[in-house]
Amino acid sequence: MTTKYPAVRTAAGPAGAATAGDVLAGYLQAQAVEFLRSLRLHGESGADADEAGEAARLLRRSARRIAGALYVYRPLTDADWTDQLRTELVWLSDVLGREHAYAARLARLRGALHRLSGAEGGGAGGGLTVGAARAGALLERQLTLARTRAHSAALQALGTSRFHAVADAAALLASEVPLDPGARGLPAGEVLPHLAEQAQRRLAEAADALPLAVAGHPYNAEALAHGLAAAPGPDGPPAEGRQDAPWHQVRRLVRLRRYAQEVLDEHGQTEAEPALSVRLLGAGQALDRHRDAAEAAAAAATAARTPRIAPATAYALGILHADQRHEVEAARFAFGRIWQRVTTGTPGSPGSP
Amino acid sequence: MTTKYPAVRTAAGPAGAATAGDVLAGYLQAQAVEFLRSLRLHGESGADADEAGEAARLLRRSARRIAGALYVYRPLTDADWTDQLRTELVWLSDVLGREHAYAARLARLRGALHRLSGAEGGGAGGGLTVGAARAGALLERQLTLARTRAHSAALQALGTSRFHAVADAAALLASEVPLDPGARGLPAGEVLPHLAEQAQRRLAEAADALPLAVAGHPYNAEALAHGLAAAPGPDGPPAEGRQDAPWHQVRRLVRLRRYAQEVLDEHGQTEAEPALSVRLLGAGQALDRHRDAAEAAAAAATAARTPRIAPATAYALGILHADQRHEVEAARFAFGRIWQRVTTGTPGSPGSP
Repeated sequence: MTTKYPAVRTAAGPAGAATAGDVLAGYLQAQAVEFLRSLRLHGESGADADEAGEAARLLRRSARRIAGALYVYRPLTDADWTDQLRTELVWLSDVLGREHAYAARLARLRGALHRLSGAEGGGAGGGLTVGAARAGALLERQLTLARTRAHSAALQALGTSRFHAVADAAALLASEVPLDPGARGLPAGEVLPHLAEQAQRRLAEAADALPLAVAGHPYNAEALAHGLAAAPGPDGPPAEGRQDAPWHQVRRLVRLRRYAQEVLDEHGQTEAEPALSVRLLGAGQALDRHRDAAEAAAAAATAARTPRIAPATAYALGILHADQRHEVEAARFAFGRIWQRVTTGTPGSPGSP
Repeated sequence: MTTKYPAVRTAAGPAGAATAGDVLAGYLQAQAVEFLRSLRLHGESGADADEAGEAARLLRRSARRIAGALYVYRPLTDADWTDQLRTELVWLSDVLGREHAYAARLARLRGALHRLSGAEGGGAGGGLTVGAARAGALLERQLTLARTRAHSAALQALGTSRFHAVADAAALLASEVPLDPGARGLPAGEVLPHLAEQAQRRLAEAADALPLAVAGHPYNAEALAHGLAAAPGPDGPPAEGRQDAPWHQVRRLVRLRRYAQEVLDEHGQTEAEPALSVRLLGAGQALDRHRDAAEAAAAAATAARTPRIAPATAYALGILHADQRHEVEAARFAFGRIWQRVTTGTPGSPGSP
């Protein structure tokens, strides 16, 4: 991407002599340009839902990267200005992401219903039970409604002055990154790896606090351990949500570590083995799947609380909930295996217990 | 056990010179004596349910062993007489086992409800949802009724002439085993291992036909693949039952192989490593767990079809069904690992995929 910004690279001289500020600015400017381009695409997409969806995806992609890089490399920036932008980018990414999230959740649950009908893997399967078909229709109705609302909310957000302020900030970022005056002079080869290392440490601490010993034991039945637990109180968070939260946090930290690595790769002189990026990507994907399955399970549980549904529908939703919690457990198991390789740097893991 | 039958051992001379017929007769006589002793205990237990249950367990234990040994070593016996006895022992073992099976199924489902309430593993869990509590009460009612009926059926069976004929046959077996005339002269060291090897081969063929590659991959979601499949027809077997049948068959073959080994061990001159018996036991236990979980899952599904239950109850039963199907999958995974060691004879298995 830096090839688009020869000015930055030239000003810094050969890559080896680049300053930390220049490298970070190069990355941020490239992402800001992507952000503005996606915004333009989104505006031009009109009624084409696919095009608008793709533009929104790209918009969120660069928003996440800008916010992530600003967080990891915060000491190099004008923190007052960038902290504010970071907050706004997270807001925007969230608002724009919801429509897609509901659509993906519905697709995941539809896929699970299909799988649970025995339609895959041959056999005389095919055809859902009446309860499963009704459960599918109920989820379709509820998640489509949520999706439509999220779509309206996103359109509305794009018309607010709050959004226009974000777009203005991105335009500023694309032309000049507000850096800390001192950062321009720091050598990239020392400062950037140091800050990326801090992101790695935060990730490692959070990951080590996860119950990885349990998760590494297949079929530990841990993810469904609160499937039938009474809520601690009318306003208390569901027990499954409490159990999932540290995993969601690690998911965010993996993402930050990935973006930190992208900035290092921009510099082109990192010592990180190429396999690290691949493993971080794999770890992130496992935790994405963890989050998606957890939210799909919650959607099934919510649907089951719909008044006046038939028992057969509720039964199917119970199976669907448990199935998705099983997916949650499988994702934790997968993350544990990848994480073992991230920390030890070994090409493969020894046998599981 | 043969120490109770010095006559047999003495007649055969030193163990090395024993005939196949003598060794088999020694094993069968010991089991027949156990059978008759358990029968007496059962008769004397009166109203003590624990004592009666334990006596029935021991009765089934020796009935299974007699039937199993008669099956594996059939060529050494008077086949007409023993085939008939075998059929009757299977009938008796089945009739006497049902009460225990319903009790165990209820205990398993109660345990699962407890686990799914988050009561284990700490946390603010504890207390079932209303639906789960109702599901538990419903299962309690249905399985207790089934258990009571099974109890009456067992008592009734013990009063039939059919049962008295089995007891008479066992008494005959305890004094003299009807062997094939030619079997008495065959050397135990050659014939018995050969017949046990045939049992091993039948087991290996059936186990190799199982989808062990899929089962060895943790979280393959295969066991629940028909959880929401419409029945193929009003009288067709449920899809999950079809999927489970080959595993149940292997379970029976593992048991036969174990009893075959017990006869060899009786001879005291087998070349089998001591670890084999341990692994066969482990393989059998994994498949017992497979069967128990499959039947518990079916009981939850049956309970969910009870008319006029609340949706919350049906939802909890759906979760319970899926949970037990996960147990089915976990048992298959465990069996696959043990089976790998039975066939390769290695002390441990390499890492899973």
